[in-house]
Amino acid sequence: MLTLKDIELAHERIRPFIHRTPILTNSSLNKLAGAELFFKCENFQKAGSFKIRGATNTVELLSDSELKRGIATTSSGNHGAALSMAVSRRGGSTKVVMPHNTPKIKVENVKRNGGEVVWCEPDQKFRESVLSDVVEETAATVVHPYNDERIMAGQGTCAKEILEDVPTIDCIVSPVSGGGLLSGSLVAAKNMKNSVKVFGAEPEEADDAYQSLKQGKIVPNKTINTICDGLRAEIGSKTFPVIQNLVDEIIPVSEKDIIESLQMIWERMKIIVEPSCSISLALILKNKMMFKNKNVGLIMSGGNVDLNKLPWK
Amino acid sequence: MLTLKDIELAHERIRPFIHRTPILTNSSLNKLAGAELFFKCENFQKAGSFKIRGATNTVELLSDSELKRGIATTSSGNHGAALSMAVSRRGGSTKVVMPHNTPKIKVENVKRNGGEVVWCEPDQKFRESVLSDVVEETAATVVHPYNDERIMAGQGTCAKEILEDVPTIDCIVSPVSGGGLLSGSLVAAKNMKNSVKVFGAEPEEADDAYQSLKQGKIVPNKTINTICDGLRAEIGSKTFPVIQNLVDEIIPVSEKDIIESLQMIWERMKIIVEPSCSISLALILKNKMMFKNKNVGLIMSGGNVDLNKLPWK
Repeated sequence: MLTLKDIELAHERIRPFIHRTPILTNSSLNKLAGAELFFKCENFQKAGSFKIRGATNTVELLSDSELKRGIATTSSGNHGAALSMAVSRRGGSTKVVMPHNTPKIKVENVKRNGGEVVWCEPDQKFRESVLSDVVEETAATVVHPYNDERIMAGQGTCAKEILEDVPTIDCIVSPVSGGGLLSGSLVAAKNMKNSVKVFGAEPEEADDAYQSLKQGKIVPNKTINTICDGLRAEIGSKTFPVIQNLVDEIIPVSEKDIIESLQMIWERMKIIVEPSCSISLALILKNKMMFKNKNVGLIMSGGNVDLNKLPWK
Repeated sequence: MLTLKDIELAHERIRPFIHRTPILTNSSLNKLAGAELFFKCENFQKAGSFKIRGATNTVELLSDSELKRGIATTSSGNHGAALSMAVSRRGGSTKVVMPHNTPKIKVENVKRNGGEVVWCEPDQKFRESVLSDVVEETAATVVHPYNDERIMAGQGTCAKEILEDVPTIDCIVSPVSGGGLLSGSLVAAKNMKNSVKVFGAEPEEADDAYQSLKQGKIVPNKTINTICDGLRAEIGSKTFPVIQNLVDEIIPVSEKDIIESLQMIWERMKIIVEPSCSISLALILKNKMMFKNKNVGLIMSGGNVDLNKLPWK
């Protein structure tokens, strides 16, 4: 099981290759929320999202021979770009299995960082089967986007930085998709400061983690009809037990609330974040009593948005 | 004539009421430009632009009786919002004469900060005549958006902060409209570090400052058909002599280049800035030889963009 020590070691390992992203505050959103909000800006991170943390940690741990066989993964875009960046730096090559409805900016981001795109149907089962085909053909080493303790440890460094920079944090809200970021955040936060509550924000339209918690076992998504292109994956066999064990609550959020909070962050904070992170603000604004007067960390997980396809057009 | 001492005093005066905005860098834009770019993020400033600097400095210098008569101004939006904020804080009221084609977000920003909007035709002559009417009716005290040394001193604090935070700066690029920001930047930069070159970036479609410099006297805009809604005003009688005396060059920039650089900043830096500031990056990218390997400060003057009307839609 993932430990704080794993996350600390990951942090040392990746430090030279990532940004220590800033934590921004905004008085008008604080007023609206009735809480002190601390936005951890991973949208400013290298390759545009927190994914570089887990990807770099894993790639640094690969042997030269693993690297030589080539690397493969499935990704909604951000992990693919991050992994390509980390692998390119070590001189390797990366194949990224991506759903064909991935935003163009994320596809270009993979290519710009040296990755090769392999298309698949959006559904989770196709993601995994196309990846298996790639591995069979090429004998590539798979770096899974979330179901891997090296990835989970890397993603946990983000919550670690929040607690280091704002020790008075009472709660952290993290988006949840495959569970890499949430499981890493849980292990980091709960072990660094026992009283911190950690919540997962999940789209109502792709609520497999919420349903899985309720049923006590992993169940698949019924729909993935959400604007949050980064939150359409399914909870993993390695991430789920950590979440089940440590999370305070996973709360589903409606598409309307996600879009409203997205526009709010862009307009008031003047930063570009993905719907997959505005979901955290939406969760807080819909559950104000839970966060009243608390210091709340929100992980702004990424900023790779297709500017030609904005949801409020 | 405006002096560095005026700017230093303004800085002390306004410090409690403004943000010390961050200076951001971006390695991919550095690579593209062949220079080290330092983006001074006044888009994160209070009321969403640098205008709060000059407005606060001026309002702090008003007497109670001046304030009691009410304040009036003309504005393309950002000065109006900033002035309304500064006046509201001292308990006064503000009338803002604005062109009816002002972006909605800027109109709302004025209202949210307690200002009252008075509409006018977009042309400069109408701006001034409607303002005269307001003053005649109400005996209001005018705080001009730029043609006032108190305003110019306040705006100069922005370049002062750039030089304090990045002493190795070789050049500064500032947008130019009425000339408040550029004249203040010139006096601050040239007196703090004699070798610093300061350039004004002006839309080709509203190039009165460029034409005025060339002809050695103030000439009006021939067109104001530019996307830069903040750069449609005309150079002032107080700002022009300072600019004439100190500026290294004013360089006109095309609409196409302004829009391209806007999208570049949004996509790569994940921050929301106005076309009126992406013009500075456009200037650099079109004149790379001038800036080769230099440390260049770019004033990102504001972030109040109507998200429903993006130029690349």
